[in-house]
Formats: sequence, structure tokens, C-alpha cells
Amino acid sequence: MASNVFYLKKRVKNIFNKTNNKVDLIIIKNSIDPYIDDNFFYISGLTKGIYEGSIAILYPSGDIELITSQLELESAKKSNLPVHIYNDYEEYKNLLEKLTTKYKNIGLNFTGISHKGFLNLKQILEKKQLIDVSNEICETRLIKDNIEISKMQKACNISDDVMKKIPEILYEGIYEYEVAAEISYLMQKLGADSSAFEIISSFNKNTAEPHYSHGNTKLKKGDFALFDFGAQYKKYNSDITRTFIFGKADKKQKEMYYTVREAQQIGFDEIRPDIAANEVHRKVKSFIDNTKFKGHFIHSTGHSLGLSVHDTNKGLNQNGNFLLKENMVFTIEPGIYIPKFGGVRIEDDVLIKKDKIRLLSNSPRKLIEI
Amino acid sequence: MASNVFYLKKRVKNIFNKTNNKVDLIIIKNSIDPYIDDNFFYISGLTKGIYEGSIAILYPSGDIELITSQLELESAKKSNLPVHIYNDYEEYKNLLEKLTTKYKNIGLNFTGISHKGFLNLKQILEKKQLIDVSNEICETRLIKDNIEISKMQKACNISDDVMKKIPEILYEGIYEYEVAAEISYLMQKLGADSSAFEIISSFNKNTAEPHYSHGNTKLKKGDFALFDFGAQYKKYNSDITRTFIFGKADKKQKEMYYTVREAQQIGFDEIRPDIAANEVHRKVKSFIDNTKFKGHFIHSTGHSLGLSVHDTNKGLNQNGNFLLKENMVFTIEPGIYIPKFGGVRIEDDVLIKKDKIRLLSNSPRKLIEI
Repeated sequence: MASNVFYLKKRVKNIFNKTNNKVDLIIIKNSIDPYIDDNFFYISGLTKGIYEGSIAILYPSGDIELITSQLELESAKKSNLPVHIYNDYEEYKNLLEKLTTKYKNIGLNFTGISHKGFLNLKQILEKKQLIDVSNEICETRLIKDNIEISKMQKACNISDDVMKKIPEILYEGIYEYEVAAEISYLMQKLGADSSAFEIISSFNKNTAEPHYSHGNTKLKKGDFALFDFGAQYKKYNSDITRTFIFGKADKKQKEMYYTVREAQQIGFDEIRPDIAANEVHRKVKSFIDNTKFKGHFIHSTGHSLGLSVHDTNKGLNQNGNFLLKENMVFTIEPGIYIPKFGGVRIEDDVLIKKDKIRLLSNSPRKLIEI
Repeated sequence: MASNVFYLKKRVKNIFNKTNNKVDLIIIKNSIDPYIDDNFFYISGLTKGIYEGSIAILYPSGDIELITSQLELESAKKSNLPVHIYNDYEEYKNLLEKLTTKYKNIGLNFTGISHKGFLNLKQILEKKQLIDVSNEICETRLIKDNIEISKMQKACNISDDVMKKIPEILYEGIYEYEVAAEISYLMQKLGADSSAFEIISSFNKNTAEPHYSHGNTKLKKGDFALFDFGAQYKKYNSDITRTFIFGKADKKQKEMYYTVREAQQIGFDEIRPDIAANEVHRKVKSFIDNTKFKGHFIHSTGHSLGLSVHDTNKGLNQNGNFLLKENMVFTIEPGIYIPKFGGVRIEDDVLIKKDKIRLLSNSPRKLIEI
């Protein structure tokens, strides 16, 4: 089922409002999988499929029209938007020419189109100015509307429910990849369309690699067991991490855990409208760097989340010199990584509200010994 | 574990051999997820991770160097290739300038880089000619080497093993999404890194939509049950489809099934070195169009398969005016779709050899009534 067209039009108007009249029309163009611009789904409200080669045309009035191949017609109709159909390249070209006749300055998302796709559009629209509107789209996307928030809440509920089941799944000798398989299964059984990204399921010293996914390591007594995953629900994603101790935590494991948990709380306390993203990161990082774990927090404090897992590519890190605003959603995920020993990361998804944050994810954050 | 560097160098030399000296150097550049150029993995042999922002530099000698951020260093080393590290944008720029100093004509994959990524490279390499080598890369990628074939064989074995289990999984009243969850679970338990694409699990009249994924429909006696999925193993994909009858097949279902099965056999018989891709499609399509199901085969006969599911975007369809060659891998997947009634598709992955094909996938193709 498509999102309400009223919301879609508002998204389009918000984008145009930021462009200061530099464009008369915006074209969102999908190339071939995986070069699909997720803004096609942001603007069409469609929740399934990939729509290779399809186009969304955005007008300053908020109106939206889609161009798709014949094969996608039935699915595209679910958007409740006008759909133009082409059967071959000639028809596609003619349609694009016709629909853009009256317009001179055409906005494109330069980050979401392949260079080849750009050159092809430039050839078809040879007399037009093609202007980058990626920043305007990105700024609009950062602020979530109610339809988006409700989908993300559902995605978070699914990953929370799965995370809560993990302690029952673990036993001595289980392989990392087996837990990953269970997580994937449970998320889909609970209504996820797919995994938001490749599941991280790591034990023991593998937990010290933040980018590790899963492998053939068996779980042993005393291990850290770290799980980082998310559900994708109607194209929107969740992204959470918990680190368990399989057995009794020793002193060092406890110190690492409590330090990360406190660092995350600082993130929760600091994140609010009108604070700079890099300031939140600075606060969290300097807390860790004032403990014995100085230098062991080696990545961003978090990232924007939405249709994409690293949504709009904006993060809570040293480059984040932009102000946070109400209704942005960011992960807060400090970690401590000690090579050849192990790592702890705790990650939740936070909706920024005026007075206080709303946690979209809510699995227990206390130290769990299994 | 990385692929053997000998094979990687051969891939690079094959690409340069096709460029007729128009370039001195090739740069493969990843943008931000999902704008990751899978050629980065083709050339580095790396089998995990996404390497946002990373670069592979290819020399005509076959030599390869990687540029990655500090965070990726440990993982990138697994390639056994020289790795250059940057800590910030300034270092990244300087590295690129330094490594390209002696070269004038630089090849880029225009289909695998975002337009913004292209503009950024153009700014850094302002005095260089940037030349599209996407066709040369694509032609090289189409022919699989032994390392690639063995990974694809493993991916096919996994999806075959899962497909064989499906009849035991099905029961009256099971939901489509539940079977999708089982498929995903079983593939990962058997060693898949992930699903190759969103699993299609469709019942009854939903099987008539080739692009349907899965939903809330319950299985009933007499239904078609169609499953289209693949495993991703060390970045390489399989892609198979079977259509079962849940109960006793009626006359029309049988006719549809046997017609598709015969059409697929025609595909197997026709596909060989030096036949045009569109000729294979024409043979399969005209077979179906000479039955009572004329007009109900509404998509390509197949597509190239490899690191990407629609690998290099080459297909067995009316636009496929290129010759097939030994060691290409294509799916053969005819189907018949009758709106509001149902559809049948049978899909296998075929390695083209000189004298006869080698089927990489091999689940039973006979009509299975459950």
C-alpha cells in the first residue's frame, strides 16, 4: 500500500523550498540495480520492488508523476500517482522530452545517479540545464514525517523483539553464522521484508573488529557475543547492537561494558535540536578518552537512519558540522575495541524531539550474562 | 580469504587488452553504500565488507593497488595486495595525485560511479582525461574464471539444497512470508553470506506477477507455489526458481508446467558459444508463442549471473545482440503468467562450455505435487 499522497506532495514541496528557485523541475532517475536511488521510494511512497530505469518527476506544486516500463505498470499504480509507460527506448526518450518541454532548469540528485545515467539524461535533455539538488534532497530527507517514523518504529520493534530472544538462542559451541541465520529468520517471521544490512554476529576477539560480519567461530564460555542488525520494513530500516557476555563477565569486560553504556547515555543526554552533530560526537568520545579506554573508540558516534541505513550519509562524527533538528533519527552507538581481546558496542535508534528524545529501539541495555 | 593474486592480475590484463591502449591506468571508485562498484571486489578478490569510498588502481601490467581509510586497513590486507591508507580527505587527495602522476588517460567505470563521485575525481585529477571503460570491464566480467565458477557452484549448491527441502516445509495455511523466512534461514545455515536478492515466495494467483516478493497470502490446496531465490557466497550469487503444485495439479496447471519445462529445455539446447543472446531468447519465446500460452511469456529468457544478480546487465532478450562465449554464466528462466490465475517459472544457472552446457544448479525439474 502506498503512503498517503498528501505526505508525498509535502516532501516534494519541502525539497523545492530549499532550492531557492534554481530549478523548475526535478528528475529522480534509477539506474540498474544496485544503482537505485532510494529517493524514488521517498517520493513515490512505493514499498516494494526496485524499479530499474524508472523515473519520478517532481513539480514545484508538489505534483509527482512516474515513468516506468510496461512490466512495472501494475505495481507502480499502487502509488496512486499518475504513471507514464514506455515500451522501448524511443518511447522513453519521447516521454521525457514531452514532460520536460516547458522547463529549462532541471534538478537531479547527483549522488543517486550513475555517471553513465547522467550522461544519458544529458543527451536526451541536451538543451536543459542539469543542476545538482542532492543537498536539498538530503536536508529534506533528514527530517522524518509521521509516515516514516511509524515505519521505522515498526522496524525497530521487530529488531528489539529478535534481540530479546538471542539469550535463549545461544549455547556453547554455536557458530556465529548460525546465530546470524536465526536472526534473519526471526526478523522475517516477525514481518521484516529483509535484513537491513549484512548481520554482524561475532564472538570473542572478533568483536574487536567493528566491520566484521560473521564466520565459523564457535561460542565459548567467557566470550563477548556482539550482534548488530536491523530489520527493513516497507523500505525503512532499524539498526541496533547489543553485546552479551556468554558466562560470567570478568572485571575488564565489565569495565568496558559500563563505560560504553555510560557513553551511550551521554549521547542520549546531549542529542537535541540545535546542537551540532560533531558536538555530540565530541562529548561521547571525550568521555571514553578520559577513561583507561582512551583511543579505543574508533568510529562515529552514530549516523542518520531511514530509507537507507547510512541515511543521507550524515553522521555524528568530527565532520558533522550541521545542526541537529527535531524529527531527525540517528543511531547512538559508542563502542570500545581492544584488538585480540574483544569489543563492546551498544546501539539504539533515537528520534530527536523538542524537549526530550524518543527511543525508537528499546531492548534492555543492562549487562546480560548468559 | 582473498582470491589468488594471479587470477586478479589476469582479470586486470584482460580489461586492458580490450581498451586498445586508450587508457594508461584504471580507477575503480566506491561511493557511499549502495553506490558500491562490485568491480572493487572483482579486482581485489575481497569477499566481505563494503569499502565505502575505497579505490582500486589497476595498471596495464596487471598490478593492483588499493586505497582505503584507516578503518579498513586490517580487512583490506586480506587481499594480499598493496594497500595505501588515508586518514582524512587531504591525505586521500594527495595519495590519488601521487599515484596517478605519471599517467594521462585514466579509465573509469562510468556505470559504477555516482555522478557526484565522478565530479569529485575530476576535480582532484583536473589535468587528466577521464575515459569510460565500462564496456571493457563488462565484457571481461561476462567470462568467468575458475575461482568465480567455484564460488558460484557453491552458491548454487546451497540454493539447490534449500529448494529440495521446500516440499517438507509447506503445509496448508502457511504464509508466503513464513516460507521466505525459512528459505533465508536455511541458506544461511548452509553457509550463504546472505540472500542474493529479496526472496520471492508466492502462492496462487500471486505467482502470475513475476516481480512479486512475498506477503500475507496463505497456502491452499490446489495452489501454485513459486519460489525464486539465490544464495550469496563470498560475493557471488545463485538464482533459481521452482514452481510446485500444492495438491493435485489440474489440467491447465499441468499444461503450463510442461510447456515451461520444455521451453527451458530449448534454452538449454540452444545456448552455446557464438550464438547471439537474442537468438536464444527468440527460440524460447517462439516455442511458447506457438502454444495456447502465446503472449504469456513476458520477460527475458535469462540474464548473466555473477558478482551481481543481473551481472553486467546483459540478458537473453530481444536487445541481446552480442555473441555468447565459453565460460559465461546465464540463468535460463522461461515462465508463463496468466493474470488472476497464476504463473509457472523454472530457472536454472547455466555455465556455457564448448561442447555442452554445465548446469550449476540442479534441483529436480519435474512436476512436484505436494
